[in-house]
Amino acid sequence: MQRRLLSSAVRCFAANGFHATTTRDIAECVGLSPAALYVHFPSKELVLFEIIRAGHEQVLTYVRDPGILALENSADRLRAIVSAYTRWHARHHVTARVCQMELNGLTAEHYGEIVELRHQTNGFFRGAVARGVADGSFARVDVKRVTRAMLSLSIDLVRWYRLDGSDSPEQLGEFYAELALKLVTPSRGTAGG
Amino acid sequence: MQRRLLSSAVRCFAANGFHATTTRDIAECVGLSPAALYVHFPSKELVLFEIIRAGHEQVLTYVRDPGILALENSADRLRAIVSAYTRWHARHHVTARVCQMELNGLTAEHYGEIVELRHQTNGFFRGAVARGVADGSFARVDVKRVTRAMLSLSIDLVRWYRLDGSDSPEQLGEFYAELALKLVTPSRGTAGG
Repeated sequence: MQRRLLSSAVRCFAANGFHATTTRDIAECVGLSPAALYVHFPSKELVLFEIIRAGHEQVLTYVRDPGILALENSADRLRAIVSAYTRWHARHHVTARVCQMELNGLTAEHYGEIVELRHQTNGFFRGAVARGVADGSFARVDVKRVTRAMLSLSIDLVRWYRLDGSDSPEQLGEFYAELALKLVTPSRGTAGG
Repeated sequence: MQRRLLSSAVRCFAANGFHATTTRDIAECVGLSPAALYVHFPSKELVLFEIIRAGHEQVLTYVRDPGILALENSADRLRAIVSAYTRWHARHHVTARVCQMELNGLTAEHYGEIVELRHQTNGFFRGAVARGVADGSFARVDVKRVTRAMLSLSIDLVRWYRLDGSDSPEQLGEFYAELALKLVTPSRGTAGG
């Protein structure tokens, strides 16, 4: 029942936002009364926190995959990390939308916990970019800004992605991985001037 | 007063979302009763539509600037269009957040009008990419997907941009313009494999 409540809440929050969703909306989708929901989750904020926490932990698991960290070649490693991050956001795009867009519904304490998870995830990204800059396989880019741009690409897909669209999560992951590589490839000074 | 109501509504919608904002919230910020708001806007949806319509028209004006369309060099033209689009989203990031994230609060008819404006704006982007592909200054990229990625970069800034952050709208515009160029620069086959 807890699982069904969470998946009902994800749909409600993604469609109407946390603030406009009532516990009644969440409970009614699974045939419960709001009072019955409180047995599982004492507050609506705790439902949101559980969704966002679990989502962020999954993303972190994706990007710190031992198989990725074992990749010696910096381009291969960056490609794998971008692809994994993108794939998660595409495959779970409804949950991902809540994870990315409803953070302002969290209490300050819970928000702090999520920010910590995001820092860890973003750290693997930044590390992958910095590694290639350091070993000379990437251009000497502004690591922080370029990493933020790579994250932006994948995060923004929660706004438009559909599973029945033209790209599977895997295809989009590969495409964004190639774009990420382009952002760090040393310029040969043609179109870029 | 209409202007003050709209700017109050932008703040409310950006902070809590359209669905969770009441006409009372909007009116009280400017010292009016909800009834007085209805003199100016017969429904909350019309307030949202006016904000989103005006925002999208401004963006369209930015990207179809005659100065941009007069640029003969394809790289210069793409750089100018990305920079203008990014600059608008950064400078007006609170309004832009409503324009990008609250489209599902619109009626079907109003949504259709906005989609039409978006198609026009996106058409200038796609045109700028396709032009460079056609004249050989850009790589033979997938125009539709690459254009979508460029748009994503600028749209996602509405989630995190702050005017007191490290980049001014102009600086971020220039940075994203350079990134956009990298996405279309012919590969020299190093990091990208």
